[in-house]
Amino acid sequence: MNEDQLRALFEQVRAGAVEVDAALTRLRHMPFEDLGFAKLDHHRALRQGMPEVVLGKGKTPQQVVAIARRLLEVSKNVLITRTDEAIAGAVKAELAGAEHFALSGAIRFWRDKTQVGKGKIAVVTAGTSDIPVAEEAQVTAEVMGNQVEAIHDIGVAGIHRLIDNRVRLTEARVIVVCAGMEGALASVVGGLVACPVIAVPTSVGYGASFQGLAALLGMLNSCSSNVTVVNIDNGFGAGFVASLINRL
Amino acid sequence: MNEDQLRALFEQVRAGAVEVDAALTRLRHMPFEDLGFAKLDHHRALRQGMPEVVLGKGKTPQQVVAIARRLLEVSKNVLITRTDEAIAGAVKAELAGAEHFALSGAIRFWRDKTQVGKGKIAVVTAGTSDIPVAEEAQVTAEVMGNQVEAIHDIGVAGIHRLIDNRVRLTEARVIVVCAGMEGALASVVGGLVACPVIAVPTSVGYGASFQGLAALLGMLNSCSSNVTVVNIDNGFGAGFVASLINRL
Amino acid sequence: MNEDQLRALFEQVRAGAVEVDAALTRLRHMPFEDLGFAKLDHHRALRQGMPEVVLGKGKTPQQVVAIARRLLEVSKNVLITRTDEAIAGAVKAELAGAEHFALSGAIRFWRDKTQVGKGKIAVVTAGTSDIPVAEEAQVTAEVMGNQVEAIHDIGVAGIHRLIDNRVRLTEARVIVVCAGMEGALASVVGGLVACPVIAVPTSVGYGASFQGLAALLGMLNSCSSNVTVVNIDNGFGAGFVASLINRL
Amino acid sequence: MNEDQLRALFEQVRAGAVEVDAALTRLRHMPFEDLGFAKLDHHRALRQGMPEVVLGKGKTPQQVVAIARRLLEVSKNVLITRTDEAIAGAVKAELAGAEHFALSGAIRFWRDKTQVGKGKIAVVTAGTSDIPVAEEAQVTAEVMGNQVEAIHDIGVAGIHRLIDNRVRLTEARVIVVCAGMEGALASVVGGLVACPVIAVPTSVGYGASFQGLAALLGMLNSCSSNVTVVNIDNGFGAGFVASLINRL
Amino acid sequence: MNEDQLRALFEQVRAGAVEVDAALTRLRHMPFEDLGFAKLDHHRALRQGMPEVVLGKGKTPQQVVAIARRLLEVSKNVLITRTDEAIAGAVKAELAGAEHFALSGAIRFWRDKTQVGKGKIAVVTAGTSDIPVAEEAQVTAEVMGNQVEAIHDIGVAGIHRLIDNRVRLTEARVIVVCAGMEGALASVVGGLVACPVIAVPTSVGYGASFQGLAALLGMLNSCSSNVTVVNIDNGFGAGFVASLINRL
Amino acid sequence: MNEDQLRALFEQVRAGAVEVDAALTRLRHMPFEDLGFAKLDHHRALRQGMPEVVLGKGKTPQQVVAIARRLLEVSKNVLITRTDEAIAGAVKAELAGAEHFALSGAIRFWRDKTQVGKGKIAVVTAGTSDIPVAEEAQVTAEVMGNQVEAIHDIGVAGIHRLIDNRVRLTEARVIVVCAGMEGALASVVGGLVACPVIAVPTSVGYGASFQGLAALLGMLNSCSSNVTVVNIDNGFGAGFVASLINRL
Amino acid sequence: MNEDQLRALFEQVRAGAVEVDAALTRLRHMPFEDLGFAKLDHHRALRQGMPEVVLGKGKTPQQVVAIARRLLEVSKNVLITRTDEAIAGAVKAELAGAEHFALSGAIRFWRDKTQVGKGKIAVVTAGTSDIPVAEEAQVTAEVMGNQVEAIHDIGVAGIHRLIDNRVRLTEARVIVVCAGMEGALASVVGGLVACPVIAVPTSVGYGASFQGLAALLGMLNSCSSNVTVVNIDNGFGAGFVASLINRL
Amino acid sequence: MNEDQLRALFEQVRAGAVEVDAALTRLRHMPFEDLGFAKLDHHRALRQGMPEVVLGKGKTPQQVVAIARRLLEVSKNVLITRTDEAIAGAVKAELAGAEHFALSGAIRFWRDKTQVGKGKIAVVTAGTSDIPVAEEAQVTAEVMGNQVEAIHDIGVAGIHRLIDNRVRLTEARVIVVCAGMEGALASVVGGLVACPVIAVPTSVGYGASFQGLAALLGMLNSCSSNVTVVNIDNGFGAGFVASLINRL
Repeated sequence: MNEDQLRALFEQVRAGAVEVDAALTRLRHMPFEDLGFAKLDHHRALRQGMPEVVLGKGKTPQQVVAIARRLLEVSKNVLITRTDEAIAGAVKAELAGAEHFALSGAIRFWRDKTQVGKGKIAVVTAGTSDIPVAEEAQVTAEVMGNQVEAIHDIGVAGIHRLIDNRVRLTEARVIVVCAGMEGALASVVGGLVACPVIAVPTSVGYGASFQGLAALLGMLNSCSSNVTVVNIDNGFGAGFVASLINRL
Repeated sequence: MNEDQLRALFEQVRAGAVEVDAALTRLRHMPFEDLGFAKLDHHRALRQGMPEVVLGKGKTPQQVVAIARRLLEVSKNVLITRTDEAIAGAVKAELAGAEHFALSGAIRFWRDKTQVGKGKIAVVTAGTSDIPVAEEAQVTAEVMGNQVEAIHDIGVAGIHRLIDNRVRLTEARVIVVCAGMEGALASVVGGLVACPVIAVPTSVGYGASFQGLAALLGMLNSCSSNVTVVNIDNGFGAGFVASLINRL
Repeated sequence: MNEDQLRALFEQVRAGAVEVDAALTRLRHMPFEDLGFAKLDHHRALRQGMPEVVLGKGKTPQQVVAIARRLLEVSKNVLITRTDEAIAGAVKAELAGAEHFALSGAIRFWRDKTQVGKGKIAVVTAGTSDIPVAEEAQVTAEVMGNQVEAIHDIGVAGIHRLIDNRVRLTEARVIVVCAGMEGALASVVGGLVACPVIAVPTSVGYGASFQGLAALLGMLNSCSSNVTVVNIDNGFGAGFVASLINRL
Repeated sequence: MNEDQLRALFEQVRAGAVEVDAALTRLRHMPFEDLGFAKLDHHRALRQGMPEVVLGKGKTPQQVVAIARRLLEVSKNVLITRTDEAIAGAVKAELAGAEHFALSGAIRFWRDKTQVGKGKIAVVTAGTSDIPVAEEAQVTAEVMGNQVEAIHDIGVAGIHRLIDNRVRLTEARVIVVCAGMEGALASVVGGLVACPVIAVPTSVGYGASFQGLAALLGMLNSCSSNVTVVNIDNGFGAGFVASLINRL
Repeated sequence: MNEDQLRALFEQVRAGAVEVDAALTRLRHMPFEDLGFAKLDHHRALRQGMPEVVLGKGKTPQQVVAIARRLLEVSKNVLITRTDEAIAGAVKAELAGAEHFALSGAIRFWRDKTQVGKGKIAVVTAGTSDIPVAEEAQVTAEVMGNQVEAIHDIGVAGIHRLIDNRVRLTEARVIVVCAGMEGALASVVGGLVACPVIAVPTSVGYGASFQGLAALLGMLNSCSSNVTVVNIDNGFGAGFVASLINRL
Repeated sequence: MNEDQLRALFEQVRAGAVEVDAALTRLRHMPFEDLGFAKLDHHRALRQGMPEVVLGKGKTPQQVVAIARRLLEVSKNVLITRTDEAIAGAVKAELAGAEHFALSGAIRFWRDKTQVGKGKIAVVTAGTSDIPVAEEAQVTAEVMGNQVEAIHDIGVAGIHRLIDNRVRLTEARVIVVCAGMEGALASVVGGLVACPVIAVPTSVGYGASFQGLAALLGMLNSCSSNVTVVNIDNGFGAGFVASLINRL
Repeated sequence: MNEDQLRALFEQVRAGAVEVDAALTRLRHMPFEDLGFAKLDHHRALRQGMPEVVLGKGKTPQQVVAIARRLLEVSKNVLITRTDEAIAGAVKAELAGAEHFALSGAIRFWRDKTQVGKGKIAVVTAGTSDIPVAEEAQVTAEVMGNQVEAIHDIGVAGIHRLIDNRVRLTEARVIVVCAGMEGALASVVGGLVACPVIAVPTSVGYGASFQGLAALLGMLNSCSSNVTVVNIDNGFGAGFVASLINRL
Repeated sequence: MNEDQLRALFEQVRAGAVEVDAALTRLRHMPFEDLGFAKLDHHRALRQGMPEVVLGKGKTPQQVVAIARRLLEVSKNVLITRTDEAIAGAVKAELAGAEHFALSGAIRFWRDKTQVGKGKIAVVTAGTSDIPVAEEAQVTAEVMGNQVEAIHDIGVAGIHRLIDNRVRLTEARVIVVCAGMEGALASVVGGLVACPVIAVPTSVGYGASFQGLAALLGMLNSCSSNVTVVNIDNGFGAGFVASLINRL
């Protein structure tokens, strides 16, 4: 149930088509249902106006299929993140309409493609190895109704590649920057543009990258003031917040 | 020089009032001037449409006064953050119009109070001890042309206080949450609202808070997907990004 | 040998049925026997009034079976934690009466189901992925003679789900909270109730969760004063202490 | 307002002496009042049946005095923790009845000395340097209505000192163990007794103690299953939880 | 070449049986030979009077066999530590006289069993899971000519088991303590005895044990002054130093 | 396109053979081409005068082959680092002239063997287990036109082995030191020579080596002032910088 | 009371001069006395045959004086470590015979100068700044009856200085090595000698030395097998263990 | 004694002016002299061809003056780093010719200004607050005979300032980059130039900069392969290595 449906309900109440008590009851019973192992919170869509999202990691294929099946009954768009092969196989076998993104493990059911974002979201990577995280961000932002421009492999060691893309960057309303190793791309992009930049440290690197810690600390200490940060490899979170901002 | 001034310049060029070469020269010489010890980058205002900001920490009172004096000649609004008593004393003695905020050490020159933010920014704290960081965020957002609503001391140990403020929270277009210790307030606020939440971990706490690390990690791992994070105690950065978002 | 048996021994001594020297000898020889590779400490049951517990992790299937077989001769209830498939298979093949809990790897021999807990213990999870740890806590608390109420998937991102369970929470005499990622649930539950809360950080999460460190630090810094903490993923310890408290 | 007062209110309602609406209004307005800089949550006393507590650290002397003055109007017992000399001086000068504990910086207003604890709480230290933290725990447990037995300087390097105190330890219903350096005392005490042990790592030590981290990690990994842990130097939290348990 | 052989050489020189230049040349060329991939340093035996030791980890089976074969030509006793199945299989297939210790992966060639230690070395473990590390220490100390007493599973949660072994502990001239989790056993043993105690933190544990870091920090902060520490899981190093001390 | 080619272009311009505009266009379009997933930056060779390098780790075999094939069309020498078996197999099957170095996973196409280094680069290891990292450094330095002297297994526990190699060390113009565990070799070598020493911490070790952190910190704190440090296991980076220095 | 006195007591018992009960009583009452704030454990001298030691840090001058005064009544030699100026002043003013060592803050009462060590202990520093820690080790070893040879400033950056001292090092029966920064001296000394080496990491350094962590990790990972480690800056512990070993 | 003096000595020997034995004796006695607390190693100048350097931090003013006085007798150029006011005052009062650099605390005696560097060394800072570290690098490189170009305040948030300095950067033979916060400047400069870049992380920043750790990790993970790293705030080390390279 999204905001439109809620508004419709209230209008029915105002029009006398639904009794106040009945409306209240429907509202009260709506928040979640009990599948035994997970509470599905349909109100969350109401509170945040977004499709339902399931984190695949840490769940069994059966759990993911059951949750997704239930969500597809009440929501047009469903996103499953971080599936492994077993989950992806089960979902594709059991549920129609699944798009599978192999690099990031995302699965998308995208049945309502209304564009709600007001501008373009740029999703940028420093190197080829950061693309799986960027893919998760892109898939998320698209299913939430945004046009996404992907710009890959423009890391700071070759600053002119970045500068060559300056126009595309300045045309974006929000930018997601995915970078591992030292994560410097977020600061440099942040310095080039005037819009909010969401930095995603990736676990790309080795040794003293400490699985993304180096990039995380670098981004948190960015000298560009328009940068905020999400968890290491959290492409989904970056795409989600970018979508929220792009609706404003 | 802000965007309006730049457009004016281009229109003068189009109207023939300024030669192309002269315009180019003005543009070329504009980016920064050399004070010997610091490059002032007036283009930054152009790129990001914001007042000039000086980080007081790590500079001498003389350096801060010199930089601020120069900036005040070219910019209506100037913000100096993290001043200690020596810097604050020097600035107030030498430069007229300084507002000094004692908790955060911010100093503000606010000569152009045009509101450019489209909605309200809420700045929230978990406890009394987080107020200095929140003050920095509030001062920043205000000088950047936003209406700010401060909501203090609504930490999660008393969840009803938070819920009592739910309406005020949902009215905001962007929310800044400042919390130390375990930093849980960001997640709870994030779950209550549909707008972007910028979390500022504070160094409030002791022992295993490790000067804000516990709050920082908590916020980065938030189960609420609308949360992004800035550096520990970085009220300025949070207020800055909130302002960027609120202009969209 | 439990406290009742010990009291019986002393009463036999007082009644003259057992000589003091003989009683002393039995007491002295009781503490542990030598299986060659592990000292079984039956006095521990005396000291703590609890069933015997074997940590499966780090032992071979043969070691676990030998230890468990010996314990089952002297103790009604035996709990084996953290078994892998090899250990679980061996135990089930060799020893009758084993209950196997697949999510947590716990194996329980529960032959004396006397209830000794005075109230109810609630075991709460933030998300579906925390259930294996909660299961270990629940299995432990049950085998130690307690009624357990499991409440799953009430994480703070959907605060109303938590509030909907407020009554069930306030009815508990002790609460165990299992949460990964930022671990904020412990603080929020702690703020809602007046009883002791035992927080179990779980290793659920990725990136900057650092295998449960973020949740651990968050819980140690809880702003709710009724929260104490056990090791990451230590469902057993939480169930154990909750049982001790519930007997008081 | 404590639970007794709340019950009285409901009985007045049942007896017709107070209207339902008036009662509701009183209840609704009760939770907290706004002092401008801090929300005082009197409901917390209801929820947890405890005196009010103020954390002195991070507040100005003026803030502490104002908060404490207000709390003393509605609560018999008030505890202020972690005061420095300036705060302690101001509180003693402005508010009558303050007991000041110099080692821990605690200040106590103890006007209702009803004993509500059912047994004795032992507060134990490994060394002389841990006494400030233990003092905070003791002061807290006492003001919450418990008899406290302090046992100091029984660290594990002289195991016979610990064993000489075994009887006193086994007589306690709950034990608080304060230890720095390696923090081994918690495990050893835990192994000697059958009751819950609350371990407080202290920042006593140097070098690789890393301000209490070594003791914290040691206690979290205790091989004694009856041990739970609070934050480094958190004597207050330990005394608080011990009091909750001792009321059961 | 051991010290006796060196002395013989000098005596030959003194007796005129070997020219000074020839002796110098033999001495100069003796230190090591070049196998292409590893320098074998036979002088090390001279400098430290010990058998040759090869670290299996990080080498190929072929490398280990080649190094060991060469060493066996010049040294009676050879110890290979940390072999995996491939290395152990290759060594046993190619070289006669190998004793293989499966828990620790050590392989021992023990052809000269002269006792050079003056007393007994006790090797102690806190729990069954620490035995692999203790085995490495025991195998090392034995091959270096010491009598070793193994005392297993006397962790501090059952302090009486430790005390029951007090006599055996006090009879040792040096003690090696292997303990994971909180590592408290080192401090308690250190407090019971007057001899040097070498503490080996083990990686036994989970969660906040951080692969042995908790035990390591605990042992470094031991309140017993007779404790020194070696690397996590370094049973070899502990056995080696214990042997050096026991020769004094 | 290397520097010589660039100079030729300018000379053609000066000679009138190429128009300025055409030259500019060629220059402008030269920087990189878009393969869809990775930007190849041929200007980098210009800027740094070096062969092209591809990091194999984190790429698919298909990606590596495609990138390498394209690079081989424009560059004589190509180095692929950190290939696994799948990548190495694909590269060797698809592209002629590949040298494969099994220890380090490097693959080298070395078609222009001009020596550009002015002196000799010594690549030194502390132990046999450090050789894979040293191999990567050696392969890199060679393909960049340098003579490399490899000196293995001269760790500080046998200081005379190091001293025996003193002459070879002092003959080098730059030295790369690869060492794990405590990484002390860098300081000792640094103290013996007057040339720049590039230290590569390796992840060789266990326990408190923390995957190379111990060696990294040791090298950063070197008391020899001629030591600089690269990332853990970064043999490539060390060989690269050593080559740059040796060209000076 | 030392071991000789205890033996005398037993001989008096055997000779009939003291009744068994009286002897037992004396023994039982001996372990410690209660000064109210600290338990003095005279048995420790028995268990370890050493003078009494007081850690000054974390105690008030009054506490230190009271403890020391009491110890001087029962022990010939008393060592107070880590005093600040206030403590040192109080001790020197109140108690006769105090030697004060200003660099380390140690205070020594050395009234029984019997040599019990069988050989010489070398105390070595890498640099001038490590001398305070070495002084603590030297003062400790001397008061425990050992001849100490101090060798300062022989860090590995000038390896020949170390080698020039090789003879003095090989003459020692035990060596204490104090080094900050990368702590490499312990490994190099360990490789030169055959005796046990006790490594003391010092907090000398800055930046990535992290207050001694770099040296600590380096020493724990020493490639010289005769090295064990004590806490950062723990000169006392190193001197203590060296003394224990030198008595063997 | 520098290399020229050494060559002179050998030539005197060859010419018969000095006997071989006398020359050997002079050589043998040269390496260091014993001032009681510090060994002065004049051979170091020989080995590395550099002036003498004294680290002021951790020494008393008396020690520094004594060491410096002695060094000035044998060396033309002496550099004292990290002096505080007390040391600086003493040095300036006691020794003629001291240049004092207040930001970095360096003191320089520069009596031989021969230029030995073959090109220019650029010393670059990201922000004004990094200048003290850069000053130390500059002072060091100058006293070692190099021309230094300082370029300040060109951090990546304003990338055009960096690009405006591209020519000055490419003219340098070696570049030292000093940057705190995220330290991204090293990577960006590294990408712009073909020469070696020595990165100095500075402790400038707050919160998650962790006193320079963020910058350190960022620089170690640089995607520009020509970057090596020295310790946090180690301007001296960077200037020293840059000088070594510039002599090649």
